[in-house]
Amino acid sequence: MIADWHALMSEYEHPQDIKENTYELARDFVASGLDPDKSTIFVQSHIPEHLELASVFSDLTPLAWVERCPTYKEQLRELKGRELTTYGFLGYPVLQAADIAIYKADAVPVGIDQLPHLELTREIIRKFNSLYKKHLFPEPEPILTKIPKLLGIDNRKMSKSYGNYIALSDTPEVITKKVGQMVTDPERIHTTDKGHPDICTVHSYYAAFADPKVVEEVRRGCENALIGCTECKKRLSKILIDYLEPIREKRKALSDSKVEDIIKDGGRKAREAASKTIGEVKRLINLAL
Amino acid sequence: MIADWHALMSEYEHPQDIKENTYELARDFVASGLDPDKSTIFVQSHIPEHLELASVFSDLTPLAWVERCPTYKEQLRELKGRELTTYGFLGYPVLQAADIAIYKADAVPVGIDQLPHLELTREIIRKFNSLYKKHLFPEPEPILTKIPKLLGIDNRKMSKSYGNYIALSDTPEVITKKVGQMVTDPERIHTTDKGHPDICTVHSYYAAFADPKVVEEVRRGCENALIGCTECKKRLSKILIDYLEPIREKRKALSDSKVEDIIKDGGRKAREAASKTIGEVKRLINLAL
Repeated sequence: MIADWHALMSEYEHPQDIKENTYELARDFVASGLDPDKSTIFVQSHIPEHLELASVFSDLTPLAWVERCPTYKEQLRELKGRELTTYGFLGYPVLQAADIAIYKADAVPVGIDQLPHLELTREIIRKFNSLYKKHLFPEPEPILTKIPKLLGIDNRKMSKSYGNYIALSDTPEVITKKVGQMVTDPERIHTTDKGHPDICTVHSYYAAFADPKVVEEVRRGCENALIGCTECKKRLSKILIDYLEPIREKRKALSDSKVEDIIKDGGRKAREAASKTIGEVKRLINLAL
Repeated sequence: MIADWHALMSEYEHPQDIKENTYELARDFVASGLDPDKSTIFVQSHIPEHLELASVFSDLTPLAWVERCPTYKEQLRELKGRELTTYGFLGYPVLQAADIAIYKADAVPVGIDQLPHLELTREIIRKFNSLYKKHLFPEPEPILTKIPKLLGIDNRKMSKSYGNYIALSDTPEVITKKVGQMVTDPERIHTTDKGHPDICTVHSYYAAFADPKVVEEVRRGCENALIGCTECKKRLSKILIDYLEPIREKRKALSDSKVEDIIKDGGRKAREAASKTIGEVKRLINLAL
């Protein structure tokens, strides 16, 4: 799902890029290997049933549950210069809960920072199932990958909103530049200082993308001051450029009209499932159909 | 419009009557004289575009605007025994703003107690028009009637939720009983005490439903202790019973299937207009269509 309603929550003051970002993200999905015939790729705002379920969930979600959400306070703090103390932004995790439940998902692939949101989803679902005396929605479990979180180049959470990400579409030049800006071990000032790979952003990218043998080699080199940060970054740039090269090529082959076909097809499939669920919900709470 | 999403906001713990209430309200509309061929009668939850516009409005509505809403605090205080400190209930007036703006209404018939909500609608619309640099929505003006507020029999705001209303469907027996329970001038203890019609709930119903000559007659009778509250109430019961008789008869003639036809037809018409507006909104804020 491409969460354009969620994008609007933080970008409502300057929404002009949302459409382009929507297309770029669909392109990312397919170029990274998602097969639209197996994985339904769609745009959140094309499926109004998400908002209908969010409306039902909103009514039974205590204000305290959303106010205490740790990511809410973090984002208010981090996204400076934006007016985010809005009614919509406070409801961010309620819409996420609806995004998950509308397809009766029993598992969700998430980054580790999203676990509090998933826990809130589980709480909302439990309250719904208990209030309306029917086990309509499963409580979704998280699916974490081996690397459950990859930080941004500035060592904060990687986020489109923070502008600290490496895009799948970045050119070799941009990748080299961004890796060059990555935060390293702050205590390693001279090349002759021994480094601490476990607190180094650069090293976390090796761990995610390099061959295990290379990871070990760089670790030893850093810990024994045998390799400097500049060289280490140069080598990482090369690894990332090679890793992203086939994705970048595949992206280029995906025209806007091809992407449009994919999200339209996905939208039709998603809507079929979503409208079945919302019908069950409305019957259960006894709204006039 | 029959606001069933709004009903769910306060009734989510026990929603079983919402469907029946929806049909009863449509019946009230037609029986009171609304002609479905002239006035589009529809159910809020049948038009998902209301929630789509509410989602856009939520993002640009500061939390403080909804938190300070006077009716919000009043309802939290009055509707005891319900858990209303929810995310959904706080957003009550934002959805109302969308209900109005989705049809580009330039005027709304309201009770005087709803003026703060309408003012909030105007503020949200002003912010939308200014943020997206287009005068897409007019700022709606209130239409007040000669009697801009009729209190409930307990002298609080008349509300379905408070159970202090006289229903258009009430039988003569029920009307007589409810008028009998009406709060009168608390300082008039004996029939020989002079009364103060201007603070008497019973008298406010005379003002709304009786012939002006009768209103004056009862006023003089009360102020000069010539007529007691029991007699005054008996006479009001008769006036209300006669007033509501043709409405009650017309209600009986409206079968469930006739009502269903009316709200389905109305829904089709409303949806056509609403979907045109939401298309304009999505293009303006540049969501992928």
